[in-house]
Amino acid sequence: MTPTTMQQAALAARYGAAVPTAGPWNATIAGMLDHRSVRGYRQAALPSGTLETLMAAAQSAATSSNLQTWSVVSVEDPAARAVMADVAGGQKHILECPLFLVFLADIGRNDRMGIEEGTPLAGMPYLETFLVAAIDAALAAQNAVVAAESLGLSTVYIGALRNDPQKVAETLGLPPGTAGVFGLCVGYPKPGAEGEVKPRLPQSIILHRGRYDASAETTVRAAYDTEMSSFSQRNEMAADTWTARVIARIGTIKALRGRDRLAAALNALGFQLK
Amino acid sequence: MTPTTMQQAALAARYGAAVPTAGPWNATIAGMLDHRSVRGYRQAALPSGTLETLMAAAQSAATSSNLQTWSVVSVEDPAARAVMADVAGGQKHILECPLFLVFLADIGRNDRMGIEEGTPLAGMPYLETFLVAAIDAALAAQNAVVAAESLGLSTVYIGALRNDPQKVAETLGLPPGTAGVFGLCVGYPKPGAEGEVKPRLPQSIILHRGRYDASAETTVRAAYDTEMSSFSQRNEMAADTWTARVIARIGTIKALRGRDRLAAALNALGFQLK
Repeated sequence: MTPTTMQQAALAARYGAAVPTAGPWNATIAGMLDHRSVRGYRQAALPSGTLETLMAAAQSAATSSNLQTWSVVSVEDPAARAVMADVAGGQKHILECPLFLVFLADIGRNDRMGIEEGTPLAGMPYLETFLVAAIDAALAAQNAVVAAESLGLSTVYIGALRNDPQKVAETLGLPPGTAGVFGLCVGYPKPGAEGEVKPRLPQSIILHRGRYDASAETTVRAAYDTEMSSFSQRNEMAADTWTARVIARIGTIKALRGRDRLAAALNALGFQLK
Repeated sequence: MTPTTMQQAALAARYGAAVPTAGPWNATIAGMLDHRSVRGYRQAALPSGTLETLMAAAQSAATSSNLQTWSVVSVEDPAARAVMADVAGGQKHILECPLFLVFLADIGRNDRMGIEEGTPLAGMPYLETFLVAAIDAALAAQNAVVAAESLGLSTVYIGALRNDPQKVAETLGLPPGTAGVFGLCVGYPKPGAEGEVKPRLPQSIILHRGRYDASAETTVRAAYDTEMSSFSQRNEMAADTWTARVIARIGTIKALRGRDRLAAALNALGFQLK
């Protein structure tokens, strides 16, 4: 394929029929477009130094006011992996993958610093401070994901660690002011687990020019439902629409799998969220 | 320089004396290591299709359960830019940059869908649902940043939009359940505004193996304070240590610049944060 054909194919895989204008392009961008979350890993070790490279990429992401209120735990012990998999509702790829990272919102480190310096930090108990930590952990993690994928590795985020942040904290020995916001599996996909690029909502309802415009939403959603229903069928899942899946995921309190208690769990870990 | 020398130089720029083990490497990773936040832009237009490419990269990031609870507003109107700059405490690069994006936590779109489908989504009022939206906005934004930088553009995140989320929402016509979590300037740096790669804390206190270990923190921080003091001096800022800057940034309620009221502002925008 020519570069232009490859770009069109990448955009079509990501957007189905709703392909956006083709703009500037390169190998880094092509790699991002090709992202798939992988949920089955070979037990093959990563090249030496991979974790350090992923961390260097992660730490190179922007961090609010250079506060660096995030950390990572690499979970190696099989018993600890089993606890993580259990918290996440039995996701076996957490046991399989050669590298499993837990990204932490970590305001504890700076809090300890303030106390050591005789200036307890007044900003610590606020929702803002937790949010900065969670966002900065996400920016860092996404750099690690892009770096991993550029090296031919696959990944999947594990938001289900938030089903029980206290169990995660206890297992990883987290100090106060520190909580796992999500996990990340890294490794080589099992044959057949590589997956297919998942279509997203058209740019027309995600990107707004000047002011938010919801007017096309219902029409666009109907087309996307058809797209996602085909995707699901091709990938041997039930041929559900996107609408049906969103409703299944957040339609009921039960579907939150304990995450309706997230605020209380974070409070218990030292985040006041004022 | 040979590739190995370039990798060592990139790691040294990011970590100062505390260079980690050199692992696998490539051009995508080198690009991420070279990240600098830029606060001065030339008034040069971006190549046609750049915004669509950045959005395609952003939407290719993982999103929790494919909920896609984030959106973007591209702010083009100079009067709206002026409001954004004002909310952010007068950051003039918001006026200068050719592209200014506001990333939104957007649970409103799925909420409207549930109502249309006759199934109001029970998960909407929870902190978890806001957090998913904020994290997914951050993952998306970081892909846009990596894509932009791979195209030779520069960026800076504007967390200070959270100084007044209600003013941002009013200016951009945001519906309920939608809030700006941060802005992003994109463009070409002014001569002299390219900046220098900022050193980060050593991996030894960010990355934990198996369990969180805070024992080396104080020693490592002293070395990093020296590193950051030199960085600040070289870049014509006051030769402050990192410790001094963190204390200045979150040591007092006043330094939060209104963000101590974030929870109330989000409540007013339709996020119950239960």
